[in-house]
Amino acid sequence: MKDNNFSNLSAVFVNCTLKKSPALSHTSTLMDVSKSIMKKENVMVEEIRFIDHDVASGVYPDMKTQGWEKDEWPELFSKIFAADILVIGTPIWLGEKSSEAQKLIERLYSMSGQTNEKGQYLFYGKVGGTVITGNEDGVKHCAMGILYALQHVGYSIPPQADCGWLGDIGPGPSYGDTEWNGKKLKTSIGFDSDFTNRNTTFMTYNLLHLANLLKSNGGYPSYGNSRSEWDAGTHWNFENPEYR
Amino acid sequence: MKDNNFSNLSAVFVNCTLKKSPALSHTSTLMDVSKSIMKKENVMVEEIRFIDHDVASGVYPDMKTQGWEKDEWPELFSKIFAADILVIGTPIWLGEKSSEAQKLIERLYSMSGQTNEKGQYLFYGKVGGTVITGNEDGVKHCAMGILYALQHVGYSIPPQADCGWLGDIGPGPSYGDTEWNGKKLKTSIGFDSDFTNRNTTFMTYNLLHLANLLKSNGGYPSYGNSRSEWDAGTHWNFENPEYR
Amino acid sequence: MKDNNFSNLSAVFVNCTLKKSPALSHTSTLMDVSKSIMKKENVMVEEIRFIDHDVASGVYPDMKTQGWEKDEWPELFSKIFAADILVIGTPIWLGEKSSEAQKLIERLYSMSGQTNEKGQYLFYGKVGGTVITGNEDGVKHCAMGILYALQHVGYSIPPQADCGWLGDIGPGPSYGDTEWNGKKLKTSIGFDSDFTNRNTTFMTYNLLHLANLLKSNGGYPSYGNSRSEWDAGTHWNFENPEYR
Amino acid sequence: MKDNNFSNLSAVFVNCTLKKSPALSHTSTLMDVSKSIMKKENVMVEEIRFIDHDVASGVYPDMKTQGWEKDEWPELFSKIFAADILVIGTPIWLGEKSSEAQKLIERLYSMSGQTNEKGQYLFYGKVGGTVITGNEDGVKHCAMGILYALQHVGYSIPPQADCGWLGDIGPGPSYGDTEWNGKKLKTSIGFDSDFTNRNTTFMTYNLLHLANLLKSNGGYPSYGNSRSEWDAGTHWNFENPEYR
Repeated sequence: MKDNNFSNLSAVFVNCTLKKSPALSHTSTLMDVSKSIMKKENVMVEEIRFIDHDVASGVYPDMKTQGWEKDEWPELFSKIFAADILVIGTPIWLGEKSSEAQKLIERLYSMSGQTNEKGQYLFYGKVGGTVITGNEDGVKHCAMGILYALQHVGYSIPPQADCGWLGDIGPGPSYGDTEWNGKKLKTSIGFDSDFTNRNTTFMTYNLLHLANLLKSNGGYPSYGNSRSEWDAGTHWNFENPEYR
Repeated sequence: MKDNNFSNLSAVFVNCTLKKSPALSHTSTLMDVSKSIMKKENVMVEEIRFIDHDVASGVYPDMKTQGWEKDEWPELFSKIFAADILVIGTPIWLGEKSSEAQKLIERLYSMSGQTNEKGQYLFYGKVGGTVITGNEDGVKHCAMGILYALQHVGYSIPPQADCGWLGDIGPGPSYGDTEWNGKKLKTSIGFDSDFTNRNTTFMTYNLLHLANLLKSNGGYPSYGNSRSEWDAGTHWNFENPEYR
Repeated sequence: MKDNNFSNLSAVFVNCTLKKSPALSHTSTLMDVSKSIMKKENVMVEEIRFIDHDVASGVYPDMKTQGWEKDEWPELFSKIFAADILVIGTPIWLGEKSSEAQKLIERLYSMSGQTNEKGQYLFYGKVGGTVITGNEDGVKHCAMGILYALQHVGYSIPPQADCGWLGDIGPGPSYGDTEWNGKKLKTSIGFDSDFTNRNTTFMTYNLLHLANLLKSNGGYPSYGNSRSEWDAGTHWNFENPEYR
Repeated sequence: MKDNNFSNLSAVFVNCTLKKSPALSHTSTLMDVSKSIMKKENVMVEEIRFIDHDVASGVYPDMKTQGWEKDEWPELFSKIFAADILVIGTPIWLGEKSSEAQKLIERLYSMSGQTNEKGQYLFYGKVGGTVITGNEDGVKHCAMGILYALQHVGYSIPPQADCGWLGDIGPGPSYGDTEWNGKKLKTSIGFDSDFTNRNTTFMTYNLLHLANLLKSNGGYPSYGNSRSEWDAGTHWNFENPEYR
């Protein structure tokens, strides 16, 4: 590994807006700030708009085996799994991440019964973050749920792995809007937020640093965390508290 | 760094029970499982029972500067800051982490205006996890809030950085209890939970692996995440979206 | 109103399972306990399985106006709006309500720009609760989000308006299961939980009492809460704090 | 009951700021807007600043029985219990309600083993709401937890029972501030927020309407929700699902 050289990394951004393409997604506008940094750092970047795909609901790896006629999750999973970094983007509705974001989490979770060649959960060694936009409230709450889900299925979370934009409380323009209630705004709203810009930048670089570090070290050693070894009876230095 | 050699690491476990010593804390009983693994791996381990200390409320580094007569936070902070790993333990009340856990988070947050010699937030390079016990419900919800707070102030979160124990829904024995409602139980409750034992073990080793990796690499490079450099005008490859 | 006579009330239960009919839904099994009480009390009861319907995603009353080809929400809304009581049922995935439950909330929220003949938000005078099932963790967290959303769009929440069932931590049988891992269980799991039975009963009766009280009083007076009057300049006894 | 006559009602506002008197509390400033409406409606109103009192931690009605030297909770409980309405005010720290708010909830919960003369949980028939202030994010998340706790211990929640103020994302002035970063602001920040003013007004009147309705009807009938009757074997129309 060379510090600050990220050219062998790849990232997938999954946008969980409720709007199908080509409708404008404010979440996508903020994800672009992070994607743009990554591209300049020679990271391979792809964006998926989740709602554009015919993804089934459920908690099996392929819902076509459960009676659903269509399920594009296996294809999307291949892309997500091939990348070192996953960034989940979501709008906020009533203080919560979108139903599409929750659906994505359910499908990530549907893979959690599977293990890698070391016997670890599939997503070990990968790194995750989140980008959140709303009018007024909820970035931290949505981030809590999303980052929790990511670490639960095996992603590692670097410092300050979330970013977002919110305006004043109450209805108002969304990130990047150039007019509101029929009035032109001086600038695209939010673009001049030093707080959002800084957090987006720090998140991006922290994802890159941790992904770099983990990738160059071959991910996590399986000592102490291999599900298959545990099930086979290896418990390392764990001792049942009853017998301590 | 040698893989799986953790002897140069240190960890602090902060127990946020509402009960002062020497009252039995079920959270402490589960933390012991993790601590015991660490000790066998030659990690230096310390446990702090937060409520035993006279910690002031507030969001300044030392509340004695704000009119409080006593504040033991500065001493506790020194210990927490000296350790590579922080594990926050909490009981669950009404589905939420304890008021002591929230107070600890407020005091960790009170340090977040300070930066290290690279200009990064203070806790960069350190690793965090959480241990949670309750009768019936709430491990994941409490973990969401605690892990979010840890990553927000700079800790890194490895995969599956939480563990806990819960019984059936409704009132019941707590982790490690040997009797309930006046009846002797066959074994200490929860000690035979393969799920809790495995999660506690995996959390422990993942904390060790990530702390090892970060420590042996000198923490995070400051490229892209130094607050002082950002404030001085260095923005790396960030570009204001207005001008892209 | 006659106390304890509920025969002029109606209730809709919306099941937000991820499984399409006719697959067994454990959430439905627990909702049946509440529905059965209501039926014996001569309440008109209907259950909707949300995922069986082709409901569009988004935050407009009818997404067909936004380019979606199909949207069954308007028909479902008519049923929900006609009822005095709404009970949202959900399974728990990764500690959160299902994506279908979040989608339902988004669609309820999509109606929140509309007001009734008194100028109040549409759902004023109606009463809401929630039924939640999972293997091990998350009833309270899911209930927090669902009950919050219900009161936000105008529902009133009586005491103890949630109920649920959870087993021990870790994988296990779901509510009502009669076998697990290939082994027959002595009884349907959870059916003998006094805690779940009591909470389900209390929730049901509290929903009925409050709905009865509100209906027989014509809902909330519009004094102090009419959006149209506020917008027209009536502020009752509110005084701008700047001029107090 | 006479509609819109609230003169026989009383309310307690508990401010869960981390700052002791006489320090300025922004949360108190917003609570004043609601209190002022109530006073003009001839409601008896009292405000308690929780941190000014020596309240012990724990989940027993009086922690002096558990070895704590002091515990002012019993006196505070008397006041809270005497009032028809409870409004919990809290600042937001790291997206969560304050540790003082969580402590208050723990102490409310500590009373939940007790029942009234009908055998119902103690707080049945009372009404609750919440007032939240922060710089930038978290009103809805904090409200979720607080309103959930209130309904869990027996309070009823009317529509739109929360209000709050937030500024743009990032550091900034707090509610009512007249200067920020050394610069005078044109007006007290937030005072001109139609959204906050409206929500505060609607919350206040909805609390009054529902408290009025419940009080004039003698609270909830005990049919279907009496803990003591349930324990004695009365199950009304509940039927064990095993035998249905």
